[in-house]
Amino acid sequence: MSIKLTILGCHSASPRQNAFPTAQFLEIKDRNFLIDCGEGTQTLLRKHKVSFSKIKHIFISHLHGDHFYGLIGLISTFGLNNRENDLHIYGPKGIKEVITLQIKLAKSWTKYKLFFHELESNESELIFEDKKIQVYTIPLKHRVYTNGFLFQEKIGERKLNMDAIEANPEIEICDYHNLKKGKDFVYEDGQTSISNSKLTYPPNKPLSYAFCSDTQYHPPVIPIIKNVDLLYHEATFLEDKKELTERTKHSTAKEAAAIAKEANVGRLILGHYSSRYDDLNLFKEEASTIFPNVSLAESGKVFEIK
Amino acid sequence: MSIKLTILGCHSASPRQNAFPTAQFLEIKDRNFLIDCGEGTQTLLRKHKVSFSKIKHIFISHLHGDHFYGLIGLISTFGLNNRENDLHIYGPKGIKEVITLQIKLAKSWTKYKLFFHELESNESELIFEDKKIQVYTIPLKHRVYTNGFLFQEKIGERKLNMDAIEANPEIEICDYHNLKKGKDFVYEDGQTSISNSKLTYPPNKPLSYAFCSDTQYHPPVIPIIKNVDLLYHEATFLEDKKELTERTKHSTAKEAAAIAKEANVGRLILGHYSSRYDDLNLFKEEASTIFPNVSLAESGKVFEIK
Repeated sequence: MSIKLTILGCHSASPRQNAFPTAQFLEIKDRNFLIDCGEGTQTLLRKHKVSFSKIKHIFISHLHGDHFYGLIGLISTFGLNNRENDLHIYGPKGIKEVITLQIKLAKSWTKYKLFFHELESNESELIFEDKKIQVYTIPLKHRVYTNGFLFQEKIGERKLNMDAIEANPEIEICDYHNLKKGKDFVYEDGQTSISNSKLTYPPNKPLSYAFCSDTQYHPPVIPIIKNVDLLYHEATFLEDKKELTERTKHSTAKEAAAIAKEANVGRLILGHYSSRYDDLNLFKEEASTIFPNVSLAESGKVFEIK
Repeated sequence: MSIKLTILGCHSASPRQNAFPTAQFLEIKDRNFLIDCGEGTQTLLRKHKVSFSKIKHIFISHLHGDHFYGLIGLISTFGLNNRENDLHIYGPKGIKEVITLQIKLAKSWTKYKLFFHELESNESELIFEDKKIQVYTIPLKHRVYTNGFLFQEKIGERKLNMDAIEANPEIEICDYHNLKKGKDFVYEDGQTSISNSKLTYPPNKPLSYAFCSDTQYHPPVIPIIKNVDLLYHEATFLEDKKELTERTKHSTAKEAAAIAKEANVGRLILGHYSSRYDDLNLFKEEASTIFPNVSLAESGKVFEIK
């Protein structure tokens, strides 16, 4: 049970030396997800030693360049590397047209299968699910259609209380499966039983990560991200430039912190800083006045929760 | 009279740390041209202190990612920087559709005027001309429709021989214009004259630069690039991998040198190295056996001819 989040890029707008646009690599329950893919993401993946073959699902929040202009290059590099594994891309409607047009113009193709999952709903929806993980969209408020993403572990099996089990010799190994599923132990007479809660412990608390970028301060996200362990929320501005948030549809550090507080999250990570700010510590200071457990995203930084 | 060529990126295929795909910045007769624009080019322009506002014309050889996936990001950054100057883009048919689609999907626009000059001819053609410069396409042989570009200074005015002029007091300053244009000096009687060649020197030799990437060994380029002062010719492989040139439509260093020799160019620059080679000096060694005046492209290197 762990979440490991590697920040690849975390600045807004144009890529600069040592200020890379948004991209994150998330490892959760042995699943690996790339979130957003600004220009230069493939170089950052190499730099931070993320194996390209691990990436099977890519989530794109919106079609602004600083969140997706690196995608076509990554897809192309996967092809050059003779990738064979399927690749799934989740992003706003239009993403399939623009990627396939570029592949066509290069008279190229992907040997691997490329699946597009185009999003256009304004409600939170389940877009990925397997045995261990669920991913939901988080509709955000930006200048173009934008989703954040909520990554949730599913509740695992109950854990065996071996002391209690061994004190009951009638319980055999073949019963463990039902106990882990939460069923009571029933004696052979079919009448008497031992309550599951006496034989097992509750499963580990499932972990969750919410990615919210880009967005204006938008309280409707709060019920969706309630109690997540880790929240990345954009903070393009400080309060000194709050007047810009309405036109640009971005947030201040204080607003990000207010969302974190109201959603009762475990830890807040800030990023998507405007290039006008030299001292990023000001973002942390401003957010800390509202929500103390706050960190700054920076390229190569790893956040781990166990 | 000078040509200054700054290599931004010069490697093939995917961008890597310290191995950037093709992009060059050319200064010729106070004109500034960007040639190709692989992913990451805008970061390299910043790194090598090329002012974005200098770039008014961008030439794209072909629509493979390592030559143009950085273009949309650069166009977008020009917009973020509130550029107002017109921007002209020369490249294969299709380039307008893919760029405008991406601008549309971002619900964005450019305040500056964006002109596309789409190319589809298989013959060398004049695609840019002003008082001092001409640019011609160089049709190349690659897996997709590809042009190199020939940048030529126009022949300048003749230079005044002041000693000879001052020895003839009838010649006045208002006559200089005609002399520079090559006209003889005619006395007031309208009958007698002094030959222009006695009063002026020939103009400086116009300089020229030819960019040839990507291409298989393709002798039809030779008459187009004959006698250029500076030739960049791709050399993706050494002769040890010559068997790959037919399928991939690339050249070896030896083949690039053969083109340089047959075209009688002043200096050859090699680039577009395959990532399989660690020791790039081998490219220079191989080419030198055919054509001695050869240099290796590397990011940040400047080639200047006066």
